[in-house]
Amino acid sequence: MARITDEFGLIRRFFAPLAAGEDGALDLRDDAAVLRPNPGCELVLSADTIIAGVHFPDDADAGDIARRALRVNLSDIAAKGALPRGYLLSLQISDGIDEDWLSAFAQALAQDQETYGLRLLGGDTTRTPGPLAINISIIGQISENKAIRRTGARRGDDVYVTGTIGDAVLGLAILQSRISPPDVAFRDELVSRFASPQPRVTAGPGLVGLAHASADVSDGLVADLGHICEASDMGADIRLEDIPVSDAARSVVTDNQPLRLSLLSGGDDYEIVFTAPVEARADIASVALETGVAMTRIGQIVERGSRDRPVHVLDGAGRELDIGHGGYRHFEREVPQ
Amino acid sequence: MARITDEFGLIRRFFAPLAAGEDGALDLRDDAAVLRPNPGCELVLSADTIIAGVHFPDDADAGDIARRALRVNLSDIAAKGALPRGYLLSLQISDGIDEDWLSAFAQALAQDQETYGLRLLGGDTTRTPGPLAINISIIGQISENKAIRRTGARRGDDVYVTGTIGDAVLGLAILQSRISPPDVAFRDELVSRFASPQPRVTAGPGLVGLAHASADVSDGLVADLGHICEASDMGADIRLEDIPVSDAARSVVTDNQPLRLSLLSGGDDYEIVFTAPVEARADIASVALETGVAMTRIGQIVERGSRDRPVHVLDGAGRELDIGHGGYRHFEREVPQ
Repeated sequence: MARITDEFGLIRRFFAPLAAGEDGALDLRDDAAVLRPNPGCELVLSADTIIAGVHFPDDADAGDIARRALRVNLSDIAAKGALPRGYLLSLQISDGIDEDWLSAFAQALAQDQETYGLRLLGGDTTRTPGPLAINISIIGQISENKAIRRTGARRGDDVYVTGTIGDAVLGLAILQSRISPPDVAFRDELVSRFASPQPRVTAGPGLVGLAHASADVSDGLVADLGHICEASDMGADIRLEDIPVSDAARSVVTDNQPLRLSLLSGGDDYEIVFTAPVEARADIASVALETGVAMTRIGQIVERGSRDRPVHVLDGAGRELDIGHGGYRHFEREVPQ
Repeated sequence: MARITDEFGLIRRFFAPLAAGEDGALDLRDDAAVLRPNPGCELVLSADTIIAGVHFPDDADAGDIARRALRVNLSDIAAKGALPRGYLLSLQISDGIDEDWLSAFAQALAQDQETYGLRLLGGDTTRTPGPLAINISIIGQISENKAIRRTGARRGDDVYVTGTIGDAVLGLAILQSRISPPDVAFRDELVSRFASPQPRVTAGPGLVGLAHASADVSDGLVADLGHICEASDMGADIRLEDIPVSDAARSVVTDNQPLRLSLLSGGDDYEIVFTAPVEARADIASVALETGVAMTRIGQIVERGSRDRPVHVLDGAGRELDIGHGGYRHFEREVPQ
């Protein structure tokens, strides 16, 4: 195991190739990067940090860590309708990290750069006595005034969610040996949904001009829809039976309603929850068809009025179900080792 | 000590006020921020992480930590000639951090935002089992194609440095009880230079159109001038006697030449080292006068040719002095506890 002693050598070997072809990155040899939005465009910026033992298991694969770090950020800007442009990578390197690890980490980033169409712009590397941590600040681009915010939900809007909900939280439970589905293919599918998020990078931009409000589902469906409601000063009623669930998740949940409800509070789906007016239904169906991403209507935006919580989950008879605290709070969560 | 359990509450209380007045921050309630450069401008981006026990002592004051985190980034964009526009803050909160700490941290950021003219745009907070760490990604703005890069140094350019060199490394040595200057005022001045960097936010933009190349002095004067030389494929000769040293530093160094040389390899000066053509001397003197920042000519850019190292330090008789490895490498450094 080659010890890493030289920041500049490390940047040359592993990270400068990730900036190749992006003039504004200045070959990662400068104090800063330079970036100009395309004419008529503005930039969309987001940052997320992931830490070993908190956001991913200590023994996670270098490639999985790289993909998670980049994709959770891609998900944030996709939910705004923006296209990725570049990113800054700040890497806190812990003791166990060697050059093989860095090579695998950089290779996974290179592949994702190809897949998602962005390049490394800059960042920094530091050695830490603590756990490995990766911060990415992502820069997306979108036509001026077109970003889909959380504040735009209106009374009577349909509420939609892309893809399926709850796979990732079940995948994490499998990794933690808390559940063990008998079907190996389903098991692998759920673990993969946790380990390798699939940000909705085509669906999000497809919703520009159609969606009134949107957010990515990172904290859990109820929590993130709640953020839209709070920002818009609205409420939402969603129907448990309409929440899209994969066959793999269904095989675990079966007819256990409390377990099914818990999927709505699990995080890490990296789907998009959004609201749109009734008139947009046909156009949204077209976007779903064009992007190959399911977009399921799960409820409506309602006046908030004097509701205790912004989001109510209803059963088939229209009765409200108890979803507990209904959201995910970063500080209450640890990934067991 | 109030335990911090809710990320959203924490953002509301301590960080949303730092985004007030910046429309693009979307009140820190969204997945991302939106930013449009002024017409004719491009953005300059940089990121830096500072970690307790590595970049600052574990017992450092919350305000000092906040100022360091922001100012090391301000220094990066100032060296490019850019004006600050906003920043993303990613905070990894360790166990010892309570609400009092966060309040002091946010208050120091608020003061620096006023001083330097920028606002918080977004970011994230996470709990870490490791040391406190702060990542800031800063966004600056500059007229298109005006950023001063590291690549532009030309043969015959004068080499300049702003302010004085070596104070911060002496300040750190005082904090580490490795030296103890008898004069209390000098002692405080040196410690302050380490604890509270003063980024050259007016001098840097003043050099746009005058300097051929520039970098901030974070790794040490010889190392950072070396980066300019390598990026420009040039060499530099600088004169030890011309390196500007404060009275406080002089009181420590006295006539000890090896100690004086070591100041050139110490980091954390957050001055600007730059090159400019001889014809620019009068204009640079004007910028120094207008900004109140000393700009001292310390040498010349020369052909690199077959030189072993890009930067040579010369004594009064023009003889090369041995400066050891002459630079600072992040991974060789720890701040003792």
